[in-house]
Amino acid sequence: MTYPNGKLSEEKVFKDPVHRYIHVRDKLIWDLIGTPEFQRLRRIRQLGTTYLTFHGAEHSRFNHSLGVYEIIRRMIDDVFVDREQWDNNERLLCLCAALLHDLGHGPFSHSFEKVFHLDHEEFTRAIILGDTQINKVLSRMGKDFPKKVAEVIAKTYENKLVVSMISSQIDADRMDYLQRDAYFTGVSYGQFDMERILRVMRPREDQVVIKKSGMHAVEDYIMSRYQMYWQIYFHPVSRAAEVILTKILHRAKHLHQDFYNFKTEPVHFYSLFEEEVNVHDYLKLDESIILFYFQAWMEEEDPILADLCSRFVNRNLFQYAEFNPSLQMQQWFDLIQLFKKAGIDPDYYLVLDSSSDLPYDFYRPGEEEERMPIHLLMPNGELRELSRESEIVEAISGKRRTDHKLYYPLDLIEDLSTKRKVKEQILEILKKPY
Amino acid sequence: MTYPNGKLSEEKVFKDPVHRYIHVRDKLIWDLIGTPEFQRLRRIRQLGTTYLTFHGAEHSRFNHSLGVYEIIRRMIDDVFVDREQWDNNERLLCLCAALLHDLGHGPFSHSFEKVFHLDHEEFTRAIILGDTQINKVLSRMGKDFPKKVAEVIAKTYENKLVVSMISSQIDADRMDYLQRDAYFTGVSYGQFDMERILRVMRPREDQVVIKKSGMHAVEDYIMSRYQMYWQIYFHPVSRAAEVILTKILHRAKHLHQDFYNFKTEPVHFYSLFEEEVNVHDYLKLDESIILFYFQAWMEEEDPILADLCSRFVNRNLFQYAEFNPSLQMQQWFDLIQLFKKAGIDPDYYLVLDSSSDLPYDFYRPGEEEERMPIHLLMPNGELRELSRESEIVEAISGKRRTDHKLYYPLDLIEDLSTKRKVKEQILEILKKPY
Amino acid sequence: MTYPNGKLSEEKVFKDPVHRYIHVRDKLIWDLIGTPEFQRLRRIRQLGTTYLTFHGAEHSRFNHSLGVYEIIRRMIDDVFVDREQWDNNERLLCLCAALLHDLGHGPFSHSFEKVFHLDHEEFTRAIILGDTQINKVLSRMGKDFPKKVAEVIAKTYENKLVVSMISSQIDADRMDYLQRDAYFTGVSYGQFDMERILRVMRPREDQVVIKKSGMHAVEDYIMSRYQMYWQIYFHPVSRAAEVILTKILHRAKHLHQDFYNFKTEPVHFYSLFEEEVNVHDYLKLDESIILFYFQAWMEEEDPILADLCSRFVNRNLFQYAEFNPSLQMQQWFDLIQLFKKAGIDPDYYLVLDSSSDLPYDFYRPGEEEERMPIHLLMPNGELRELSRESEIVEAISGKRRTDHKLYYPLDLIEDLSTKRKVKEQILEILKKPY
Amino acid sequence: MTYPNGKLSEEKVFKDPVHRYIHVRDKLIWDLIGTPEFQRLRRIRQLGTTYLTFHGAEHSRFNHSLGVYEIIRRMIDDVFVDREQWDNNERLLCLCAALLHDLGHGPFSHSFEKVFHLDHEEFTRAIILGDTQINKVLSRMGKDFPKKVAEVIAKTYENKLVVSMISSQIDADRMDYLQRDAYFTGVSYGQFDMERILRVMRPREDQVVIKKSGMHAVEDYIMSRYQMYWQIYFHPVSRAAEVILTKILHRAKHLHQDFYNFKTEPVHFYSLFEEEVNVHDYLKLDESIILFYFQAWMEEEDPILADLCSRFVNRNLFQYAEFNPSLQMQQWFDLIQLFKKAGIDPDYYLVLDSSSDLPYDFYRPGEEEERMPIHLLMPNGELRELSRESEIVEAISGKRRTDHKLYYPLDLIEDLSTKRKVKEQILEILKKPY
Repeated sequence: MTYPNGKLSEEKVFKDPVHRYIHVRDKLIWDLIGTPEFQRLRRIRQLGTTYLTFHGAEHSRFNHSLGVYEIIRRMIDDVFVDREQWDNNERLLCLCAALLHDLGHGPFSHSFEKVFHLDHEEFTRAIILGDTQINKVLSRMGKDFPKKVAEVIAKTYENKLVVSMISSQIDADRMDYLQRDAYFTGVSYGQFDMERILRVMRPREDQVVIKKSGMHAVEDYIMSRYQMYWQIYFHPVSRAAEVILTKILHRAKHLHQDFYNFKTEPVHFYSLFEEEVNVHDYLKLDESIILFYFQAWMEEEDPILADLCSRFVNRNLFQYAEFNPSLQMQQWFDLIQLFKKAGIDPDYYLVLDSSSDLPYDFYRPGEEEERMPIHLLMPNGELRELSRESEIVEAISGKRRTDHKLYYPLDLIEDLSTKRKVKEQILEILKKPY
Repeated sequence: MTYPNGKLSEEKVFKDPVHRYIHVRDKLIWDLIGTPEFQRLRRIRQLGTTYLTFHGAEHSRFNHSLGVYEIIRRMIDDVFVDREQWDNNERLLCLCAALLHDLGHGPFSHSFEKVFHLDHEEFTRAIILGDTQINKVLSRMGKDFPKKVAEVIAKTYENKLVVSMISSQIDADRMDYLQRDAYFTGVSYGQFDMERILRVMRPREDQVVIKKSGMHAVEDYIMSRYQMYWQIYFHPVSRAAEVILTKILHRAKHLHQDFYNFKTEPVHFYSLFEEEVNVHDYLKLDESIILFYFQAWMEEEDPILADLCSRFVNRNLFQYAEFNPSLQMQQWFDLIQLFKKAGIDPDYYLVLDSSSDLPYDFYRPGEEEERMPIHLLMPNGELRELSRESEIVEAISGKRRTDHKLYYPLDLIEDLSTKRKVKEQILEILKKPY
Repeated sequence: MTYPNGKLSEEKVFKDPVHRYIHVRDKLIWDLIGTPEFQRLRRIRQLGTTYLTFHGAEHSRFNHSLGVYEIIRRMIDDVFVDREQWDNNERLLCLCAALLHDLGHGPFSHSFEKVFHLDHEEFTRAIILGDTQINKVLSRMGKDFPKKVAEVIAKTYENKLVVSMISSQIDADRMDYLQRDAYFTGVSYGQFDMERILRVMRPREDQVVIKKSGMHAVEDYIMSRYQMYWQIYFHPVSRAAEVILTKILHRAKHLHQDFYNFKTEPVHFYSLFEEEVNVHDYLKLDESIILFYFQAWMEEEDPILADLCSRFVNRNLFQYAEFNPSLQMQQWFDLIQLFKKAGIDPDYYLVLDSSSDLPYDFYRPGEEEERMPIHLLMPNGELRELSRESEIVEAISGKRRTDHKLYYPLDLIEDLSTKRKVKEQILEILKKPY
Repeated sequence: MTYPNGKLSEEKVFKDPVHRYIHVRDKLIWDLIGTPEFQRLRRIRQLGTTYLTFHGAEHSRFNHSLGVYEIIRRMIDDVFVDREQWDNNERLLCLCAALLHDLGHGPFSHSFEKVFHLDHEEFTRAIILGDTQINKVLSRMGKDFPKKVAEVIAKTYENKLVVSMISSQIDADRMDYLQRDAYFTGVSYGQFDMERILRVMRPREDQVVIKKSGMHAVEDYIMSRYQMYWQIYFHPVSRAAEVILTKILHRAKHLHQDFYNFKTEPVHFYSLFEEEVNVHDYLKLDESIILFYFQAWMEEEDPILADLCSRFVNRNLFQYAEFNPSLQMQQWFDLIQLFKKAGIDPDYYLVLDSSSDLPYDFYRPGEEEERMPIHLLMPNGELRELSRESEIVEAISGKRRTDHKLYYPLDLIEDLSTKRKVKEQILEILKKPY
């Protein structure tokens, strides 16, 4: 499996704030980076709406994709290369899968996927296998090569060791985004000693394992992940922005289905509304396109669409209150009625949103999402599952944490000057600690 | 001069990767940050096209504006506050001017200003004084307050000490952008000891001066600035992107004036083309709008517009060659003729671009751009101009460095298979070292 | 309570790698730093023998003491100063206690205290209250002032809020040493967001509490502490050095009691051997003195003393094996017999050493070491003990972790060429995994 | 040239705060690090008395030596290894020379060399070639190997490329100490992009050269060096400590020659006083030994020796004043007379000290200290001397900067209460700005 002119005449480097430099010696990788489909990732932020909470978080998925590639490159070239359990013929396949693993992400993926029933992994596959520049470049490696890359990303590739390098509970993807998101937001939580973890990783049949002597570095990584989830990824202000975004998409779709006459026609959205998106349409979407529409729609006649778009563009977000589903369902129903009385549509302005995370889990066959556990390589050669060795990990293993919040526009409620009674009732419920 | 409810009930903080935290205690500042005009800066990158060279440089002017505010806040609250030469009544004025100094920047300012003869400083003034949310918030401080803020930014305010804090050869603006741009690109050059510089700054009549004991920190800052200019701001690959961007704008304007029938009408550009831009139109521009058009125009009939847009969007940039104006003008003229022969329009595809910088200068009255020098405060109370004390600064003082490059599309030239002779002649000229 | 010339005419700063700068404005603090008793801390390493494992860990207690002072200064001047629950008359007392809290530490404290039954806290008290420069400087603040400082450090001072700032499960002492030891060793584990923790600390009756919104930063701090203990402080190689050091002291004391004729008389040790150490003698001890003797004793006739000193000075340490007291006691007894057969004195060359830590604990009245828990200040004003809010902390709360190791000189055993059988038996036991 | 058991069975790493990890794969290197002569470097501070000014600067030469080794290892293994101009048979020789280049340094080298006319380079050679463990380990590589290592360090080795890696104007020695000293002092000046410089280094006949594209990184390195010299290495407070140290050594030698009866006999100093130091004696010296004597001598009868030792140990240093040799020689002579009148011995208490540095120089054959210039490798393969390409370097090239200061004990002078007139005259001269 060789590429015409396999190596660049001179190594290319990208200056990267997280890994210092990203090194490219293979022409295949260089050519993939140059495709329009990969360059499109520059126009999609890594953390969606998080930049509205942490202003530094404006970095793109392009950045992250290069980072994952670089981690895999180091893992292979610096640690695995001469070990007998490692087959270096898999090298380029791994590098491509690492680089391209997020290729199918669209703008503000989370909300778009939810509202329009998309799946970025399917699009990743479609872009790799479809009529694209990416496919053309990959095919130069052999007819089957694109399919193999797609399989590694889909976790169906037969060599599970390769799969686990890209997708597992301690993979290159997570190691890059924790560090990168911490760097750009400016928080210290995402830091852990990746150099050490790389040094103690060992290729084994079916998976990457970690030498026992590196256990503490892995504990630190798992705690970093835990903190990043609750501090950054599930931050209630970012979720407030996400909530508004979702409601904009719902409203636009609803108006479209209602034959509403848009001043700015949602041309790029038609196939999304119909849920018949092809790769060609999909690749035209990015965050600049979406922001163009949202800004235009601030001037639509429909007051809900115009208001929500203005809130998103000008960062005038919803407030939030803690919500306990087992105690407060009645209050929620009461609020829905009160909102209706007040003339504020609860379908768009009263939103219950939940976040949930499992910091680490051992293997539970048959569960919804089977997670491969992290295995330690003991001095005697045995493998032991991490939570059996680490008390810290054992303590948090398998413990799902969930958080519910109720989002609402405090400004609209406070403007209810003619409906003082309703206003007071609403505020009383929202501000009561449960 | 007081604001209704001058202080927030609780200090607000923004997590910032450069200054750790940005602290806001004044309601005025908080309200300014919340205006649509200020939020718009989130959609304008601090470094324009530089992200196409340094992928980390995706940070916005919103980030930088908060940073400049924070530096001024520290300068006043931590260093100046109790000194007799400092009038703390100027505090809020300074903070506002710091926060708003870049308000008038549009998308890819440099190119837009050049092609459409705009001036971002005029727009800053117009936004502060016009019918905007910014103006409404500022006016709560008093009828004259917006005007004063505009004057500080325009450097015409009577208290030159205040002016020099925001605009001088060692001001809060430069101190923030050097550090911030270094942080996001990941280079080490922009680092200098700002903590030390702040500690040795002293307010004096007409200017901020620096205690002699901090001279070495200032030398280091000047060297950082020098390195950042040549390593980052004038990087030839970023300039290549800038060149294409400029040519897109020229082409679109030209087509408009030629009554070309756009598939995607340049609605947001009309007033730019006519050079009659009002504040209202201007505020609608940001980088997502521009990128929307560029992506749409990739499908225009006009081959030049379509090609240039595709190059910009997909990062397929021009190559460059060193150019020496005193030796190579004839070669340039030859190239123009050869490009014409080859059917490649030299107006759009052969571009001479120059960068020039003066790392530091002492005061030269009457020169094009008068620069106020940096003054050191000697132990005996005397002021001395920096280059008279520092050998390093003396050595580079007033020495303008200029760099010329010729940009061209190597791919188009290499495609000239039917015109082999012309192709060879072009390449011979371009690849000859001068 | 005022000091003649309370403030310095100009603030003094120390460049500090951990806190950037340490700021001194009070003449009292400046004068304390200048005393011989405080300067002596420059000759005592913060981490004892750890530099033999982590070569960067050569920093002194002088460094750390300044750091604790600076954290308390920021806590008071930046966060507490204007809050009603804070009495700023306690400020200088706090600063002095912070600066002087480790004053009584001697060289390699841990081993010296164990072998000679010393207590560094008693010496701290004795130096503050005795005939010393420290006492003279403190007394200028008032006759009772030294006593108060000693009380704060001894945790007997009546204002428990003040005590908790210096000594609690989240005090300035720990916050400094975790960051500082991480910085000098170069590990990433000790990092946590101290800026954030300081910002959410609130003075309350009897204790410093933490606003609920800062809980995650505190979790991160507790995990840092956990990692630092097991990665750095209890590192088995450092413990190996500590083991040898302890045995040197035992041997020297034993020889002295045996009327051994030292070539280099242990003049500085006499009062230690007799366990009648006065402050004056104690202050003459530091690590350069100890290393002088150890180097000299490498040439003593006594082979054990000479060998152990040579091992310490030239870093020729013992090896170690895991040891499980419930399974392996018999093996230990066997080893003792085998060592005797081999002619290697097990009193000095076969050492069982245990480390044990409790990462966090809630309050358990009546227990050996009562630990004050960390309290969170909830939005409604209530206080809640940390482990009731944090799942992570709850998971590790009160769980003591203990580790046992057996230390032995592998080189001596491998030299047993004439006693091959004994050698093999010893190695078989030591190398068997349990 | 092979070593029995050339490679370790498993790579060893040292955690290093500057280079993250120091990697050792060669048994030869591991064994050298374990020798008593190399371990002795742990007891000698890298920056002598600088820790009395910058309290973080307590790091040892052991640290630095490992760092230089690691830089050379990366230079060879990551950059040079496959280039045709590089002969990998020189690898181990380079690594040894890097590791051992400072082996002959004694305690507070600068002062000791000056007073006792020693030369640490001679001792390095003597330790490598003499009857030492270092020599034994090196000799296992072949009979000539120690000699070759000594030649590389002495710059007399025939392969000048190898010499230039360790000793030139941009060598591994300087690159390590600038970064390391900056890290431990906590200043930002010593930072430059070493990763980049390593990547653009190329082996050529007789020297390491730098690709033109890395010129700016080299400029930054040269500016770092300049700043570190004046900010750290020549800091007047450190020089004040150095001045006292020098005077202690002079006094002790003088007393010895005068048959003074020491309470604590200067046993370790005898051969120094006689200037007949052999390797064996020399290796017994380190900073703990010296500090032992200085503390003991605080109780000598001789008031000058006791006072100077107390000043050094308790950091009660001399004050300083600027001194201009061309204007102020008369004032110096006057001061000498006044000091004598006041009964303060000017030989020990009035010290003129000068520092001087040349930030970069091109080659000036025949000058006192010939410096090999840095050469850039131009795109066309040509070599050009750095200052011909870089305006910044050209500006400072060959410009020696010198600084003179007068040191004196302000406290002694202010105590001259019975000689008010003399005191006033002295102070008038010292405090007059020149």
